[in-house]
Amino acid sequence: MHPWVARARRAVGRSIAELPARQDGHPPLLLIACSGGPDSLALAAAAAHFARRGKVRVGAAVIDHQMQPGSAQVTESTMHRLEEMDLAPVVSRRVTVDRAGHGPEMAARLARYEALNDIARQTAADAVLLGHTRNDQAETVLLGLARGSGTRSLSGMSPSHTIDGVRYMRPFLNVTREETEEICRAEGLEPWHDPSNLDTTLMRCRVRHEVLPWLEDHLGPGVSNALARTASVLHADADFLDEQAAEYFRGAQLGPAAASSKNLELDCVAVQAAPAAMRRRMLAQACVAAGGETPTFERLSALEQFAMGYGAAGPLQMAGKVTVWRRRADKHCAKGRLEFHSTE
Amino acid sequence: MHPWVARARRAVGRSIAELPARQDGHPPLLLIACSGGPDSLALAAAAAHFARRGKVRVGAAVIDHQMQPGSAQVTESTMHRLEEMDLAPVVSRRVTVDRAGHGPEMAARLARYEALNDIARQTAADAVLLGHTRNDQAETVLLGLARGSGTRSLSGMSPSHTIDGVRYMRPFLNVTREETEEICRAEGLEPWHDPSNLDTTLMRCRVRHEVLPWLEDHLGPGVSNALARTASVLHADADFLDEQAAEYFRGAQLGPAAASSKNLELDCVAVQAAPAAMRRRMLAQACVAAGGETPTFERLSALEQFAMGYGAAGPLQMAGKVTVWRRRADKHCAKGRLEFHSTE
Repeated sequence: MHPWVARARRAVGRSIAELPARQDGHPPLLLIACSGGPDSLALAAAAAHFARRGKVRVGAAVIDHQMQPGSAQVTESTMHRLEEMDLAPVVSRRVTVDRAGHGPEMAARLARYEALNDIARQTAADAVLLGHTRNDQAETVLLGLARGSGTRSLSGMSPSHTIDGVRYMRPFLNVTREETEEICRAEGLEPWHDPSNLDTTLMRCRVRHEVLPWLEDHLGPGVSNALARTASVLHADADFLDEQAAEYFRGAQLGPAAASSKNLELDCVAVQAAPAAMRRRMLAQACVAAGGETPTFERLSALEQFAMGYGAAGPLQMAGKVTVWRRRADKHCAKGRLEFHSTE
Repeated sequence: MHPWVARARRAVGRSIAELPARQDGHPPLLLIACSGGPDSLALAAAAAHFARRGKVRVGAAVIDHQMQPGSAQVTESTMHRLEEMDLAPVVSRRVTVDRAGHGPEMAARLARYEALNDIARQTAADAVLLGHTRNDQAETVLLGLARGSGTRSLSGMSPSHTIDGVRYMRPFLNVTREETEEICRAEGLEPWHDPSNLDTTLMRCRVRHEVLPWLEDHLGPGVSNALARTASVLHADADFLDEQAAEYFRGAQLGPAAASSKNLELDCVAVQAAPAAMRRRMLAQACVAAGGETPTFERLSALEQFAMGYGAAGPLQMAGKVTVWRRRADKHCAKGRLEFHSTE
């Protein structure tokens, strides 16, 4: 057996080992999110191996974004290949990408995850497997860096996470794109090559085809590996930091714990006394808990200054229609506090 | 006044505000570590402003690395410029850079900090001010990334830290190199341009003159800013993570707390139950506490697997002559444990 095939199977095997047993006694059902490209086709092949051994059932979901001429035909031939591998069920879904308010990449992603979530629920799948490779991970980290991001976004794509109750896993984050190409050759599979992957007006394509190869030449080979490794190290850190911050946030909340409204209050002293890494996160969590958006770096910096008692008396406007007031201790409350009000 | 001059002074003013009052009642003494280059010369000029107002005393330390012909002359003319700014004391030190076991950049750095530490102690200085700019910070982050680093090394250079009891501060981490050049022009100062800054056989120079400018062209302007911002966000995270890990480490230690030997024991269950971000750090801290070196990514991964009970029975060799044994619970100890032995 080709060594990359063996390695790919081990990677999928590790993901399968993480799945809990099903209530209904059936083997778990995995859905491969398959574009027909080499990554997801190699993933389907590796998963099919476990289906043949009866350990799991493996189906697939093929999303037609209708963003290119001939997309229906690509969808059909991809489904055909997956059925030939004995995957079942193989479900396709045609989506309309609504670009309002988003770039084309983000709009396609939103439409794709909505459809995948839907198919996963309808088929009662235990997990959706995504074919992202180590190369994709390196690109994600570099894109985050170019924006000046924090620990969470530099940690790249998660190996396993849940969206609206549907579990997504990425077994191939340590497999390279070249390896998936070779697996397809070794398995006699003919992948589709998405022409939009060559569209260098898209930032991610530029990073893939120009920036990373150039960096490998000028900083030494292994830059992609280094970026992917950075992601894996930072992933655990980001998880820990978010969990700790949630505790700090709960500890700083004043007033009825289960207030029905989205308005909430934080104890100023608790916010000010928190370590800097916790302070910024708890303030961001408060904005989201009040119904707002995750603040940008700049807005969060302004909110932090405000919480520390600097600058104007306020109030401060945060994205997602949240207003923050800074109140001194008074007859209503013995503690100085920050009030987060949703103005929706 | 030129706006960059005002901005540089504010930056230095913030550093001064952080200094505690001296026991002897004198104003604090700052030492500028000055190469004669635009960064440190602009820093000296900004600090001299506060000396003129009597808030602080400002001296300088000029290190002659003797790595280039004419370095003695550069040292002398730099001292002369600093004395003209009324800095006192202005101390120079000639060092011999011993490259054994280090690259030339690291060897020069080690020699420099040893000399600076020494001068700071002799002059009873309260802080040594370093001229590193936002550009230097961006370069440091990119170099760390190319190596595949974790949160700590991506957080770049610290705005303030202590080496062997001497406090070092970097007031200019938000000032650009171009701004320091302009400050020198505005103040009528003629900086020295270190020819080794153009030596593109050095990785840092390549990053400065080739990689970052190319990235600015291809990922969009502002990449340097983004990298420096990443450093500032990650800095607080790295501090918090290290502090938390120290607590996990203490909590997992078995046996006499103040054992005189460097051998130490960790409770296996406590290690295994720790969050991943804490587990790797507490294991690294244990290696260092046992007299070893901070482990590389690969060795730490191996140690983590070993601590989780996977792989061979051991023992495991770590850098700096530390050997780790995995022991089951026995009559000597009711808990399974990891033993770290220094074999020096």
